[in-house]
Amino acid sequence: MKRSFGLAFALFVCTFTFAQQALWGGTSIVSPEIHENNTVTFRLKAPKAVKVQVTGDFLPTQKIKTPFGDFDGPGAADLIEKDGTWEYTTPQPLKPELYSYTFLVDGLKMNDPNNVYMIRDVVSVTNVFIIGGGRADLYKVNKVPHGTVSRVWYNSPTLGMDRRLTVYTPAGYETSGKNYPVFYLLHGMGGDEEAWIALGRTAQILDNLIAQGKAKPMIVVMTNGNASQEAAPGESSLGFVSPNMQLPKTMEGSFEMAFPDVVKFIDKNYRTIKRKQARAIAGLSMGGFHSMHISKQFPDMFNYVGLFSAAIMPDNNVKSPVYADLEGKLKAQFAQNPALYWIAIGKTDFLYKANEDFRKLMDDKGYKYMYYETDEGHIWKNWRIYLTEFSPLLFK
Amino acid sequence: MKRSFGLAFALFVCTFTFAQQALWGGTSIVSPEIHENNTVTFRLKAPKAVKVQVTGDFLPTQKIKTPFGDFDGPGAADLIEKDGTWEYTTPQPLKPELYSYTFLVDGLKMNDPNNVYMIRDVVSVTNVFIIGGGRADLYKVNKVPHGTVSRVWYNSPTLGMDRRLTVYTPAGYETSGKNYPVFYLLHGMGGDEEAWIALGRTAQILDNLIAQGKAKPMIVVMTNGNASQEAAPGESSLGFVSPNMQLPKTMEGSFEMAFPDVVKFIDKNYRTIKRKQARAIAGLSMGGFHSMHISKQFPDMFNYVGLFSAAIMPDNNVKSPVYADLEGKLKAQFAQNPALYWIAIGKTDFLYKANEDFRKLMDDKGYKYMYYETDEGHIWKNWRIYLTEFSPLLFK
Repeated sequence: MKRSFGLAFALFVCTFTFAQQALWGGTSIVSPEIHENNTVTFRLKAPKAVKVQVTGDFLPTQKIKTPFGDFDGPGAADLIEKDGTWEYTTPQPLKPELYSYTFLVDGLKMNDPNNVYMIRDVVSVTNVFIIGGGRADLYKVNKVPHGTVSRVWYNSPTLGMDRRLTVYTPAGYETSGKNYPVFYLLHGMGGDEEAWIALGRTAQILDNLIAQGKAKPMIVVMTNGNASQEAAPGESSLGFVSPNMQLPKTMEGSFEMAFPDVVKFIDKNYRTIKRKQARAIAGLSMGGFHSMHISKQFPDMFNYVGLFSAAIMPDNNVKSPVYADLEGKLKAQFAQNPALYWIAIGKTDFLYKANEDFRKLMDDKGYKYMYYETDEGHIWKNWRIYLTEFSPLLFK
Repeated sequence: MKRSFGLAFALFVCTFTFAQQALWGGTSIVSPEIHENNTVTFRLKAPKAVKVQVTGDFLPTQKIKTPFGDFDGPGAADLIEKDGTWEYTTPQPLKPELYSYTFLVDGLKMNDPNNVYMIRDVVSVTNVFIIGGGRADLYKVNKVPHGTVSRVWYNSPTLGMDRRLTVYTPAGYETSGKNYPVFYLLHGMGGDEEAWIALGRTAQILDNLIAQGKAKPMIVVMTNGNASQEAAPGESSLGFVSPNMQLPKTMEGSFEMAFPDVVKFIDKNYRTIKRKQARAIAGLSMGGFHSMHISKQFPDMFNYVGLFSAAIMPDNNVKSPVYADLEGKLKAQFAQNPALYWIAIGKTDFLYKANEDFRKLMDDKGYKYMYYETDEGHIWKNWRIYLTEFSPLLFK
């Protein structure tokens, strides 16, 4: 009788694994396979398919025609079939980076069933992989002390809602007894409090930079910048709704006006250094727009400001006290000499001109800022770069 | 000029959304659509497909033949094509539950591109949806105060490793100043510290039970029970490795012997009630095995023990001091009258007989326990039920 327990369990494990594979489509195929020279092979078992392609940001971009004009999108490459398994190997080694991809099977998009690593970006879920080396090693989990990542709910009296935050506290926070500076990090349009921790790799980047002594230990607070929303899709009482790129109350002043609620909550519930010198705010795209407006609306709050591919829109046709008197408020903000005002954008970003105009305004007024320019455009690759460049400049 | 900013951005939003949909396969199709009467329609746009099926645990099970014997697996249903879009509506309303499904397109498994909600279970990622009502309302995010969910790293001196935990602290923890009881909740084979918070819906279940006054506010600690592993797949320095059902050092004593490291870390870093009366341990399958062995190995540590479909294996052919003298250790454990020893299993579970034999042993010795039996077998549906039944019994 004793024997049968172990035997039953061993059989269960085998059966379970086999059945999971049979039912849910897992196979023994390896995809993506990253070779030693950093070429990558993608594989898909699809005996009945006529055409299989892989599309992703590791391929040269291609022009996508849309009703709104051309768009630089990820390219596609054909897989070749042999015995029912399709395969494509990149002709060249890939540069270090976190890449996204999906398959196109007879025109139908599908995620790679042999790669469980997927990240949602607004309305789409794609597979991901990392080619290590250089800056991309900062995007990896390495053998360094790890901070804590928490999903926390706070009450916003100004918005009259309970809302969700993602909070990174650095390794050692729990036991050090010390107080820490706080970096508020804001997502772009369609994003939420999951964006920076997922595609942004914030926890990995901060763990690694802090371990290398390049960034100060700090708390990073990732807010939800959609003032109509309690939490990321699936995390509120709305249930498993479809994510939406265009939400109400995103760039009309509500989020900015309610931002002190977040700072108060963080200062009350974490061991923070509760003064301007120990606070930074930055964001990508819409989050850059928010960071610009919040930092000038509350000029005593932040000493470090980062605009990452910021959606700078002097005239956004919204009447809110937040957007009134841009120049007067900038003047008040810069009269206090912020320690850092950092502007970054990619050369092909559709917001390049808007940022150039904003820099001209800054130059005209003699406001000091640092400028960082990269190749390419309005993409996560750039935002991860900006985070790795900006965070070492903070709280020094 | 001013005009162009807003226009460029509006165009970007449209183009971005359109391009994302075109490139990554999102469409305006709604799937799954949960109708008011709780029938559900699944849809997939696949003009070139010959046969499209949906498979999932909302369908009657079917026998799957494997080299290891037959296996009760999810059934499959055919979708019908019209104008390139395939559709299937359940003939009957579905009962309240969290369900998993995927599509099979010409035999190829694929996730639903119109449903961003997916959860990994060991080696497979499937889409999920919830039919509300009854017990399943506990699995939803509702308008109640929400606890905090943290991913925390601790050092295990016994294992000589930094390891990852998922910790739930109840709503109000941050500000109450109170000390809380702790419930240690353990996953099954192939699982990790993400299992209970993902498919287990622990945060939602505890938020809801606590808000209803049915469970005491408590801290829930979800460990990683694979003693060879620092963290869940993708969360350690191993990188984006393929998950594996069969890991080394899972049921050979290492995890059990090192468990006091976890308790010490939690007691040091959280406001806990640091005594046996305020500690519970439970787990599913392998986690039930672990809970049984840990609670008798350290009889002064836990006052509440839950075995959920426990992998009880009196002879698992492993020589570890943990597994020696089962009866002697149970005697010592029950000599101290634990407040609750709770055994639950499904009628068709392959471990039913093993649990029956274990209960006979308990009965023979006169050890008190509660027994809870459900329909069906070794599935998450049952483990969520057990969590909703067990946690209200704790710390009363």
